[in-house]
Amino acid sequence: MTGEEREQRQQREERAMARAQSLALRGPRGVNPQVGAVLLSPNGDVLAEGWHRGAGTAHAEVDALSQLSADAARGATAVVSLEPCNHTGRTGPCAEALIAAGIARVVYAVDDPGLRSSGGADRLRAAGVDVDAGVLADDGTALLDSWLTVQRLGRPHVTVKWAQSLDGRAAASDGTSQWITGPVARADVHRRRALADAIVVGTGTLLTDDPALTARGPDGTLLAEQPRPVVVGTRAVPQSARVRTHPRPFLQDEGDDLPDLLDRLRELGIQRVFVEGGPTLASSFLRAGIADEVLVYVAPTLLGGDRLATGDLGVPTIGAQRRLDIASVDRLGDDLLVIAHPISPAPALLPAPALSKGDT
Amino acid sequence: MTGEEREQRQQREERAMARAQSLALRGPRGVNPQVGAVLLSPNGDVLAEGWHRGAGTAHAEVDALSQLSADAARGATAVVSLEPCNHTGRTGPCAEALIAAGIARVVYAVDDPGLRSSGGADRLRAAGVDVDAGVLADDGTALLDSWLTVQRLGRPHVTVKWAQSLDGRAAASDGTSQWITGPVARADVHRRRALADAIVVGTGTLLTDDPALTARGPDGTLLAEQPRPVVVGTRAVPQSARVRTHPRPFLQDEGDDLPDLLDRLRELGIQRVFVEGGPTLASSFLRAGIADEVLVYVAPTLLGGDRLATGDLGVPTIGAQRRLDIASVDRLGDDLLVIAHPISPAPALLPAPALSKGDT
Ligand SMILES: NC(=O)c1ccc[n+]([C@@H]2O[C@H](COP(=O)([O-])OP(=O)(O)OC[C@H]3O[C@@H](n4cnc5c(N)ncnc54)[C@H](OP(=O)(O)O)[C@@H]3O)[C@@H](O)[C@H]2O)c1
Ligand SMILES: NC(=O)c1ccc[n+]([C@@H]2O[C@H](COP(=O)([O-])OP(=O)(O)OC[C@H]3O[C@@H](n4cnc5c(N)ncnc54)[C@H](OP(=O)(O)O)[C@@H]3O)[C@@H](O)[C@H]2O)c1
Repeated sequence: MTGEEREQRQQREERAMARAQSLALRGPRGVNPQVGAVLLSPNGDVLAEGWHRGAGTAHAEVDALSQLSADAARGATAVVSLEPCNHTGRTGPCAEALIAAGIARVVYAVDDPGLRSSGGADRLRAAGVDVDAGVLADDGTALLDSWLTVQRLGRPHVTVKWAQSLDGRAAASDGTSQWITGPVARADVHRRRALADAIVVGTGTLLTDDPALTARGPDGTLLAEQPRPVVVGTRAVPQSARVRTHPRPFLQDEGDDLPDLLDRLRELGIQRVFVEGGPTLASSFLRAGIADEVLVYVAPTLLGGDRLATGDLGVPTIGAQRRLDIASVDRLGDDLLVIAHPISPAPALLPAPALSKGDT
Repeated sequence: MTGEEREQRQQREERAMARAQSLALRGPRGVNPQVGAVLLSPNGDVLAEGWHRGAGTAHAEVDALSQLSADAARGATAVVSLEPCNHTGRTGPCAEALIAAGIARVVYAVDDPGLRSSGGADRLRAAGVDVDAGVLADDGTALLDSWLTVQRLGRPHVTVKWAQSLDGRAAASDGTSQWITGPVARADVHRRRALADAIVVGTGTLLTDDPALTARGPDGTLLAEQPRPVVVGTRAVPQSARVRTHPRPFLQDEGDDLPDLLDRLRELGIQRVFVEGGPTLASSFLRAGIADEVLVYVAPTLLGGDRLATGDLGVPTIGAQRRLDIASVDRLGDDLLVIAHPISPAPALLPAPALSKGDT
């Protein structure tokens, strides 16, 4: 192959990859990754396209192959947005299917991080298939961001969000807290809600505030994406609760085992969880070390008193503090939004800083 | 006078004003303003210079006049950084002295805001003196900033400073708090201390932390300016307390009447007070509405628990919240510095915002 031929092939394959990535988005977000595939003839014609329609259905490569008669894919190139799997699940390993169909070359964007499903590229190479990895890898990674995060964490990604006064209070002494933060901050919350797959509140908040738990635009209309509402706690959700009018049915969980709750949410295909409080539930997530991101909307106000935005975080002494990596600080109208990531390993394991008295 | 002559005169007088303003700084900061004066002959030669050396001594204009023989100032122009006073205090009104000396023209930068001392310009005009106000007024205002603030407030300017975790705690549950904030934030505190005339702490902080209350550079050396240390509370300052080694003697006050304490500090010439805590004392200042500026050093950490950076601020319900005007938010190393001004009138007097349940 001349350099020029190689370059032309690269261009064709990148075009096909962009197509495969957009096909991927036709499938649902969920337990399985969104994957698309395009089959190209040796001279670069599109033979077939496919995508994955969700757990239990054909993987993207197999979906594309299924549209061709036997032998029609012999010598072809499969362009796939994720490394073909090597795992006999409900559908059989894609690597074997590609080998059996006589595919000569496989191009993919992102390595499969799964412990059980990875190894497809090696399997293909061992069968003599030409394999090229990392084509449009950045786009491919962005496309699968939430799913890859779930694979890395072994659970959904958890954002814990709260609003507070500058001095860390959630409400005045009598519990009133309406409109601590302004309209720009509230609109931002709704936009971020719509990016999550589930929105979680404690029964305390449910019974006090009767929140709708929908993602709404500034005019109150529902946004296109609505996260699944999840209520945590043993107390019953009243028949009149607004969450019962949510476009998606709410889940209720006792909340005695938050990692287990996250496992079950993962099994429902939930990749991003937005914990909206209240203080007791948010503190439980923080104390358990299962917050990947913290969003603190800080209102320009001082409240004092005992209505705290965080409770006991299990920090008996300063060496056990929960250090954060502050990603950004933005002004939203009059308010501030601080986005931060808890620093792991748990700070209790970090060496205690040299102490010095009387620094003031 | 031709336009060109007028322009030349203006240039001469602005040069003289700049000189008067730099002479002003030779005097001490204190109860009285720092003022400088330059006397110009009708053709623009400098006849004499003067400045105010502090309460009980001659005002700047009179200091300059005193260097000339009788009649030598007749027809001259007095360039003064502050409106000549009209008040018979320990020294007699400057307006009269200027009139008696036969001064033909007075140029000044800043109006005297004092209720008793102002009116000098009117008195001069009534005596037929040509008066021009507002020459280099911005520089003049900056020069007298702290003193003007004291005149406006009727008391020293109060900055309340504290360090806290993002969730508003001053320490971990066992009281340990060393190094919540990093070296950049600590250096910033020392720089700002040096700009104050007094640094105030409660006996709680004094007895717990044994602070030196000096303003120091990063290498520990004392900065040139050292605020006067003030200890508030009834408990005794131990013989071994580090504050006893401060270059300036400390004051102690029972703290039962903070406005009265500020009055007494003002009488000592203190214009800027830096309240460094602890939480109990800082909250008293905030609750009493005598904080003009709030500096919150926010460390990127969560502590939870009950060691709060602010206590009871007298906010029973959300309508009484202490709204702030956030002037700036800066990253100092890993920390944030939020500088804010409490909004007056007291927020309890603001109309309550429209309430809405279930915004979440
Ligand atoms: N500032 C903010 O951003 C914000 C956000 C939301 C709410 N709020 C305010 O917070 C107040 C309610 O807060 P809250 O702290 O009382 O209620 P919450 O955190 O919403 O709910 C706490 C309740 O959740 C249940 N729960 C179950 N498992 C739990 C677990 N692992 N950890 C913690 N809780 C668990 C328990 O109730 P069961 O007995 O039913 O099991 C518990 O009492 C309201 O006034 C609301 O307006 C503020
Ligand atoms: N995070 C920070 O920025 C920061 C800053 C400073 C200190 N701290 C920490 O705070 C802790 C000490 O704080 P604290 O709140 O106990 O002590 P504090 O505020 O320094 O002192 C409180 C004491 O001041 C006296 N006092 C007199 N008049 C007062 C008034 N009008 N209002 C309030 N207090 C008055 C009282 O003591 P008497 O009984 O003697 O009259 C009172 O108990 C220490 O652990 C220290 O490390 C933190």
